[in-house]
Amino acid sequence: MADVFANISKVRFEGPETNNLYAFRHYDPQAVVLGKTMAEHLRMAACYWHTFVWPGSDVFGPGVFQRPWYRDGDAINVARGKADAAFEFFSKLSIPFYTFHDADVVSEGNSIRDYVENFAHMVDYLEQKQSETGVKLLWGTANAFSHPRYAAGASTNPNPDVFAWAATQVVNAMGATHRLGGANYVLWGGREGYETLLNTDMKRERAQMGRFMQMVVEHKHKIGFKGTILIEPKPQEPTKHQYDYDTATVQGFLQAFGLENEIKVNIEANHATLAGHSFQHEIATAFALGVFGSIDANRGDPQNGWDTDQFPNSVEEMTLAMYEILKGGGFTTGGFNFDSKVRRQSSDLEDLFLGHIGAMDVLALSLKRAAAMVENDVLAQNKAQRYAGWDGEFGRAVLAGQKSLDEVAQYALQHNLAPQHVSGRQEHLENVVNRFVHG
Amino acid sequence: MADVFANISKVRFEGPETNNLYAFRHYDPQAVVLGKTMAEHLRMAACYWHTFVWPGSDVFGPGVFQRPWYRDGDAINVARGKADAAFEFFSKLSIPFYTFHDADVVSEGNSIRDYVENFAHMVDYLEQKQSETGVKLLWGTANAFSHPRYAAGASTNPNPDVFAWAATQVVNAMGATHRLGGANYVLWGGREGYETLLNTDMKRERAQMGRFMQMVVEHKHKIGFKGTILIEPKPQEPTKHQYDYDTATVQGFLQAFGLENEIKVNIEANHATLAGHSFQHEIATAFALGVFGSIDANRGDPQNGWDTDQFPNSVEEMTLAMYEILKGGGFTTGGFNFDSKVRRQSSDLEDLFLGHIGAMDVLALSLKRAAAMVENDVLAQNKAQRYAGWDGEFGRAVLAGQKSLDEVAQYALQHNLAPQHVSGRQEHLENVVNRFVHG
Amino acid sequence: MADVFANISKVRFEGPETNNLYAFRHYDPQAVVLGKTMAEHLRMAACYWHTFVWPGSDVFGPGVFQRPWYRDGDAINVARGKADAAFEFFSKLSIPFYTFHDADVVSEGNSIRDYVENFAHMVDYLEQKQSETGVKLLWGTANAFSHPRYAAGASTNPNPDVFAWAATQVVNAMGATHRLGGANYVLWGGREGYETLLNTDMKRERAQMGRFMQMVVEHKHKIGFKGTILIEPKPQEPTKHQYDYDTATVQGFLQAFGLENEIKVNIEANHATLAGHSFQHEIATAFALGVFGSIDANRGDPQNGWDTDQFPNSVEEMTLAMYEILKGGGFTTGGFNFDSKVRRQSSDLEDLFLGHIGAMDVLALSLKRAAAMVENDVLAQNKAQRYAGWDGEFGRAVLAGQKSLDEVAQYALQHNLAPQHVSGRQEHLENVVNRFVHG
Amino acid sequence: MADVFANISKVRFEGPETNNLYAFRHYDPQAVVLGKTMAEHLRMAACYWHTFVWPGSDVFGPGVFQRPWYRDGDAINVARGKADAAFEFFSKLSIPFYTFHDADVVSEGNSIRDYVENFAHMVDYLEQKQSETGVKLLWGTANAFSHPRYAAGASTNPNPDVFAWAATQVVNAMGATHRLGGANYVLWGGREGYETLLNTDMKRERAQMGRFMQMVVEHKHKIGFKGTILIEPKPQEPTKHQYDYDTATVQGFLQAFGLENEIKVNIEANHATLAGHSFQHEIATAFALGVFGSIDANRGDPQNGWDTDQFPNSVEEMTLAMYEILKGGGFTTGGFNFDSKVRRQSSDLEDLFLGHIGAMDVLALSLKRAAAMVENDVLAQNKAQRYAGWDGEFGRAVLAGQKSLDEVAQYALQHNLAPQHVSGRQEHLENVVNRFVHG
Repeated sequence: MADVFANISKVRFEGPETNNLYAFRHYDPQAVVLGKTMAEHLRMAACYWHTFVWPGSDVFGPGVFQRPWYRDGDAINVARGKADAAFEFFSKLSIPFYTFHDADVVSEGNSIRDYVENFAHMVDYLEQKQSETGVKLLWGTANAFSHPRYAAGASTNPNPDVFAWAATQVVNAMGATHRLGGANYVLWGGREGYETLLNTDMKRERAQMGRFMQMVVEHKHKIGFKGTILIEPKPQEPTKHQYDYDTATVQGFLQAFGLENEIKVNIEANHATLAGHSFQHEIATAFALGVFGSIDANRGDPQNGWDTDQFPNSVEEMTLAMYEILKGGGFTTGGFNFDSKVRRQSSDLEDLFLGHIGAMDVLALSLKRAAAMVENDVLAQNKAQRYAGWDGEFGRAVLAGQKSLDEVAQYALQHNLAPQHVSGRQEHLENVVNRFVHG
Repeated sequence: MADVFANISKVRFEGPETNNLYAFRHYDPQAVVLGKTMAEHLRMAACYWHTFVWPGSDVFGPGVFQRPWYRDGDAINVARGKADAAFEFFSKLSIPFYTFHDADVVSEGNSIRDYVENFAHMVDYLEQKQSETGVKLLWGTANAFSHPRYAAGASTNPNPDVFAWAATQVVNAMGATHRLGGANYVLWGGREGYETLLNTDMKRERAQMGRFMQMVVEHKHKIGFKGTILIEPKPQEPTKHQYDYDTATVQGFLQAFGLENEIKVNIEANHATLAGHSFQHEIATAFALGVFGSIDANRGDPQNGWDTDQFPNSVEEMTLAMYEILKGGGFTTGGFNFDSKVRRQSSDLEDLFLGHIGAMDVLALSLKRAAAMVENDVLAQNKAQRYAGWDGEFGRAVLAGQKSLDEVAQYALQHNLAPQHVSGRQEHLENVVNRFVHG
Repeated sequence: MADVFANISKVRFEGPETNNLYAFRHYDPQAVVLGKTMAEHLRMAACYWHTFVWPGSDVFGPGVFQRPWYRDGDAINVARGKADAAFEFFSKLSIPFYTFHDADVVSEGNSIRDYVENFAHMVDYLEQKQSETGVKLLWGTANAFSHPRYAAGASTNPNPDVFAWAATQVVNAMGATHRLGGANYVLWGGREGYETLLNTDMKRERAQMGRFMQMVVEHKHKIGFKGTILIEPKPQEPTKHQYDYDTATVQGFLQAFGLENEIKVNIEANHATLAGHSFQHEIATAFALGVFGSIDANRGDPQNGWDTDQFPNSVEEMTLAMYEILKGGGFTTGGFNFDSKVRRQSSDLEDLFLGHIGAMDVLALSLKRAAAMVENDVLAQNKAQRYAGWDGEFGRAVLAGQKSLDEVAQYALQHNLAPQHVSGRQEHLENVVNRFVHG
Repeated sequence: MADVFANISKVRFEGPETNNLYAFRHYDPQAVVLGKTMAEHLRMAACYWHTFVWPGSDVFGPGVFQRPWYRDGDAINVARGKADAAFEFFSKLSIPFYTFHDADVVSEGNSIRDYVENFAHMVDYLEQKQSETGVKLLWGTANAFSHPRYAAGASTNPNPDVFAWAATQVVNAMGATHRLGGANYVLWGGREGYETLLNTDMKRERAQMGRFMQMVVEHKHKIGFKGTILIEPKPQEPTKHQYDYDTATVQGFLQAFGLENEIKVNIEANHATLAGHSFQHEIATAFALGVFGSIDANRGDPQNGWDTDQFPNSVEEMTLAMYEILKGGGFTTGGFNFDSKVRRQSSDLEDLFLGHIGAMDVLALSLKRAAAMVENDVLAQNKAQRYAGWDGEFGRAVLAGQKSLDEVAQYALQHNLAPQHVSGRQEHLENVVNRFVHG
C-alpha cells in the first residue's frame, strides 16, 4: 500500500519554541534524565486497536472515519495494508513500541482454523515490518471479548468450549508475542464479569478464571517466554461488573491462585478513575503490593461515567504518576502504551498524529518535572520526618512482632500517653508539587 | 432516669392489616421460616451510636435533636441515663441485640486512665442492663477515628503512640465484648487511609495495619474470646481513600497477612454503593471468598455521594441480599445491625421507633420473599442448567488442572469448535424475582 | 414475511397466579382504576429502535442478535419485513402504541432524495399496518444524531447545511407522525451539545437550537398537527455534555425562546439518573414547572455511568413515579414508551416478549399501588398539615406580594419569633409508602 | 487581642525563584496583564467561615484546630478577637477583599433581638477594621441554613415564621453589606431543597423562594444598595436535592420570577463538579445565559462525592476558567473568593497562610497563561473558521427568523445537500492549550 501518511514528515524533537505542530517540544528520545534516556524511561507504544481499527463509531452512531487501509480486498490484503499504514505511522511518529490484539491484526475468518492461519500469516508480516522499521513490540494480547461467542465471558463462560476458544487465542497470541520479541503479554478480561448476579455463579466463574490464569503462566514457562504476564484491571463496561475491578482486587485474586509472583498489573488511567481511584493511587498501590507492571496511558472525562480513552493531556496528573514510577524504580518490561483514541469528531488522519504528539510531549514534560521532584525530594524528606517515630525502639518492636496487643496497651497506660495530632501539611506539599510542575 | 419512651408501648407483631404504626406487620420473631425462627435468621440489632449519640448535626449545621438523656450531669451520670434510655428502647422495640462503640457508651474523660475507668464502670452497668432486659450484644467495637489524636489514622498513624492508644481501646473494647457475651468484635478503620498521597507511605501504613490486625487476632485467642473478628469495608469518607475499600480488597489484605481464616467482613449496604458495588454484590463476593460475617443494614441515597445511613426500606433490594445470605447458609455469629440513623429533620423520639419498625418489617418481609425463592429455586435451577457443560469430561478435566493451555487449544482445533452464545435470560429471571418479591 | 413469532400466542391477562410466562399477571387493559381503564392510564408503547433495530452490539463488540427480518434484500424489502415483524410483535404483545425514529423504519439510502422516497414508501406501509392491527402511534421522531453528518450536532452544527438536513428530516418525520395519527412528536438532541468547549461557541449553538425549536413549533401549527411537541432531556452520552441536560434546564431554555407553552418534556428514567436526579424528581419537577409530557420507561444500572436502557423492573420506584403522575392529572397525549432494550446476552426472540411483559406488569402493578395511595392519600394529608401555617393571614400576605422584606423582618422582631423545627417524619412516610407498595 | 500570626511577616511578591514559602511567586498585585493590574483582574477574597470559624470537624469527628481566637469570653469578646485575627490575616496575606456570613461574625445569642444587637455591634467593629487595614468587602451573606430552625429550609420552610427569621437576617446582612461598602450580596440556599419528596410540595416551595428573591431585589433597590445580588448554585448537600442545582437551573428560575436581569450567579468550582459539570462549563454557561457574577474558588476531590472545598491548585483547570472570564469581559463587581478550607489534618496556623498563598499563586499564574491565550487567540480563530458557514446568506437568514422549517427542507432538497463532517480538531486544540499552560 502506498504511503497513506505521505504528507507528514517524520516527527522530530525541535524544542519548546517550535511552531511546528508535527514536532516534539519536550520528547527528545536521547535526552538523559536521571541517568537514563527519555526513550528508556518512557518506553512509549502506539496501539493498533484505537488508532488503526476503531472506525469512529459509538453506541449512538456508526463509524465516521474513512481510513484508506479499509479498502476493498480479502482479509489478508486488508490486514497487510493496515499493517503497512500502522508501521508507517509508528516510524513517522518516532515511537519505539507498538501493541496489538490478535483481532486487530487480521480478521479471524469463519472458523478456528481460519483464525490460526490468518493470524499466523500476519505474524510473519509483522515480523518483517518490525525488522524493516526497528519498531518493537511492547506487548501482545488476545481479544476474547468482542466476538459474540464471548458475550457471556471467555474463561468465565458457562460453556467450556468458549474457554477452549479463548485458550486457543491465547496460545496463538502469546506465541506470536514471543516470536516477535514482545516484552510483555497482557490479559484484559473485558467480559470476565457479570451482567446480573441472577444468572451468575461467581465462585465457579472465579475458579474457572483462576485455573485459566495458572494455565497461562504454565504455558509461558513451557514456551520459554521471558516477558511479563500482565492483567489489566477495569471495574465495569462493557459488563456491569468486571472481576478484575482494580489493582487491589487483582492482587487478592493472584494470591488466592498462587500467582502473585507471576503476574503483574497493566494500569489504565481511565480504568482507575472508573473504579473510584486516582491514577496515582493505582500506581502507588501496585508498587505497595509488588505488582506494578505497565501503563495504559490515557485519561477519562471527569464528568462521563464510561471509558472515553482520551489522550493524556494533564502534566499535573502525569507528573504525580511519573513520580510514583520513578520512586518505585521505573519500568522493567513495561512502558506507556497509548490506549487512547482520537475523538469521533477528529476524523482526519492528521488528528492521529496530533493526538500522539501531544500525549508524548505530556509524558516527556511530566518526566522532566517528576525527575526534578526526585532530585530535590521534599516529599520523601517530609515522609521520613513524619514517620520518624516508628524508627524508635517501641515502634520497631511493634512492627517486628515483638509486642502483643495488651503489652502495647500497658505501655500506653504506663506512659499515660496523650499524643497530639501533628499537621499533615497537605497544602504546603501541594504548593511544593506545583512549584515543580509549573517551573 | 425515668422512662423517656413512656408513651410508647412494647412493639409487637400484629400482622399486615394492623393500622397501629407502632406494631410489626411482618416481623414475627417466633414465626418459622425454612426451619428457623425469624429471630434466629435475622439476629437484628439496634446501635448505640446512630440512635443514642448522634445529635442530628451535619457538616452544615449543629444538632437538631434534644435528647433527654443528654441532661446535665457528670460523664458517668449522662452515660447511665443514656444506657437506661437505650435499653428501654431496645426492650420496647423487641429487638434482640444491640451494638456499641466504646466512645458511645461513655465519654473517655481527660486521660487514658479516665478512659479505662469510665468505660469499665459502664461495662458493669451494661452487664446489669443486659441481665435485666435479656437484650444481647451482637458486637462491640472501639472508636479509633473521632478523637483528634486519630486525625491521621489509628494503627496507620505516623506516630506509634497513637497506635498504642488504639491498641488500648481495642484491648478494653474487646474485653468488654467478651465479658458481655458479644457474638463478634468489629473493626472499622475510619481514618485508616489517606487524605493525600503526597504525605503518605502506603506500604508502611499497610504493614502497620497488618501487624495491628495480627495482634488483635492473637489477643482474641489469648483471652479466649470465641466470637468472630470482623472488618468493615468502606471506600472513603471521612478520608479521601480508606484502605479497607471493599470486600475483595479486605480479603486480599487478609491473605497477605495470613488472616484470611481469622477475620471476616461486616458489610454495610451504603459502603457497598459508595464503592461502586451493589449490596448484593458485596454479599455474594464475601461468600465466594469465604469471608462473609455480618451486615450493617442501611441504605444510601442513590443520588448522594456520601454515607447517608438511611434505614433500609427496599424490599426489592433486601430480598436479593437475603437470598444470597440464605443460599450461603445464613449467619453464624453475625446478624443485621441497623447502622442507620433517622434524618436530621426527624427530630422526635417517636421517629426512632418508626425508623426501626419499618426497617425490621422490611427485613422480615424480605426474608419471607427470599425463603419462597429458595423453596422454589428457579435461579439455582437456571444456573445449574447454564453451567452444565462444565460437568462434562472436558470441563471437569480443565478445572481439575489436568489440561495445559495448549492441550485445550488442541482440543478446540481438533473439534473445530464454533460455540454459539446462549441467551442469559436476564429479563426472564428478573420477572421471576419480581413475582416472588411482589407476591 | 412469514410470522417470525409464530411460536408465541397473543399475550393475555391471566392474573397473579398464572404460571404462564407469556401472560400478564397484572396488566388487564380493561380493568378500571380510579375511573379509567389501565390501558387509558398507561398508554404503553413498544419502540422500533430498541426492539427491532439494535443488533445487540456495544462499544466492545458487534451484534449478537440474528434477527430474521434482517434477511437479504433491498432496503425497502428489509424495511417491510421489519415492519411485519414489529406489528406482529405489537399485536401479540397486546400493546396499544408504538414509536419510531425515521431511521428505524427504513435506510435513508444514498441521498436526501432517497431518504424522502424511502421513508414516504414506508409511511404508506406503516399506515396499512396500523389499520390492519389497530396499533396506534404514540410518537414519531427523526434520528438526527447517528449519521456521520451529525457528528458535530444537528441544529447546533457549525455547518448550516447540516441544520438544513435535520430540518428536512423533521419535516418528513413530523408529517409522517401527523398522517399516522401520532399523539406527540419528540425531539432528542443526541449530539446537541459538545465534546470540548475548546471548539464550541455555546451561545451561538444555543441560538441555533432555539431558532430550530421555534421553527418546529411554527411548522406544527402550519400543518395542523394537534399533538404535543416533546423534548427529551439527557445530560450527556454520546456527547460529553448535552444542552437538554434535565427538565429544569430544558424549561429554562423554553422560556428564553418563548416556547414554554408549546413544548413539553419526555422524561426518561435512565436519563434522569445520569443527570443526578431520581426519576420521581424529574416527574415532580416537570409538573411543578408545567411541562410534563410523556415518559420513556426504562431504568439505568445504579453502578454504571452510561445509558443501559434496561426494562423497568422496580415496582418500588415506579409506584412513586406513578403517584406523581396520578396526582398531576395523568397523561394527556403522552404515555409510557419502553425505551428499553433486552441485554446483549438476551439473544432469543422470546426475550423481547419477556422483557416487555415483565415491564408492562411492573407498570400495571405500580398503577394499582399508586392508585391505592391516592385513594387514601396519607402523603397529601401530611403535606396539607405540614404547610398549614402558610394558609394563615401572614403567610398569605407574603405569598400575595403584600409584604416587603423589611416588613417581614419587622414582623419577626415584633413577635420575637423563635420558631422550632417540626419533625419531617420521613421514616413514617417511607413506612406508609411501603405499606402500599407491598400490600 | 495580641497578634496571633506574630511569626508571619506580610506576604509579598518575590518572583518564581524565591525559596520563601511565605512569599508569592506569581501574584504581583500591581503587575499589569492585558491592561489591568492583577489585583483588578482577580479581586481575591479570603472568607471568614472556612478560615476563622470552621473548627476542623467532620461528620466522623470533632474539631482538631485549637484557634487562639476561640478563647473564653462572652460572645462579643470572642467575636472581636476573631475579627482582630481575621484582619491581621487578611493584611498579612495582602489579599484585598474578604467575605462573611452574619453567623461567622458573631453568635446570634438567644433571641432574634440578640441577633440584631450582636451583629450590629460587630458591623461597627468590622467597619473600624476595614478602615484601619484597607481590606474591602467583596460580599456579605446571611447564614440561613445552619441553625436548627432552618432544618427544613429558610424561604422554603413549611413554617412562615422561619421565612420571617430568614428575612430578618437578610435585611440585616444586606444592610451591613451596604454600609461596609460590599460589592455584592450573596444568597446560598443551603437547605432550600428537600430530603424526601414524600413530604415536599415542590411547586409551593418554589413559589415561596421566588417571592423571597423578589423581595430581596426590591429591598436592595429600596435601600439603594448598588452591588450585585448573587445566587450560588449547588446541587445537593446537606439536602438530598437543592433547588439552585446549577447555573442553567438558576437562570430558568430567575426568568420564571422576572429576575433574570436582577440576579447573577456565584459559581463554585466544587459545586459545579458535584452537579456533573466542569468548572469551565458553569462559567461558560453563565456567560452564555448572561448571568455571570462571581466565583467561589476552590476544588473538589474527583473521587469524593461531597463538597471538600479544597484550595484550588490546578493551573490547568484554572487557566481554562480564567480564559472564559477574560473572554467574557472579566469581573464587574465579582471576584475570586476562596471558599476553601485547609484539610482537617492541617492543624497549624501556618497552614492557613500556605493554603491561601498557593491558591493565590495558582490564580495569578493561570491569569498570565490565559492572557497569553487571549493575546494569541488560536481558539477564537478556530471557532470563527469553524462556524463561518453561518455567516453566509442562508445561515444568516435562518438565524434571523426569515426561513420556515419547510423552506429550509426545500433548500436542502433543491441543493441535494450531502454535507460532510469536518474534523473538530480537539486534540490539536488541547495541544495548543497545553503549550500555553506549560509555557
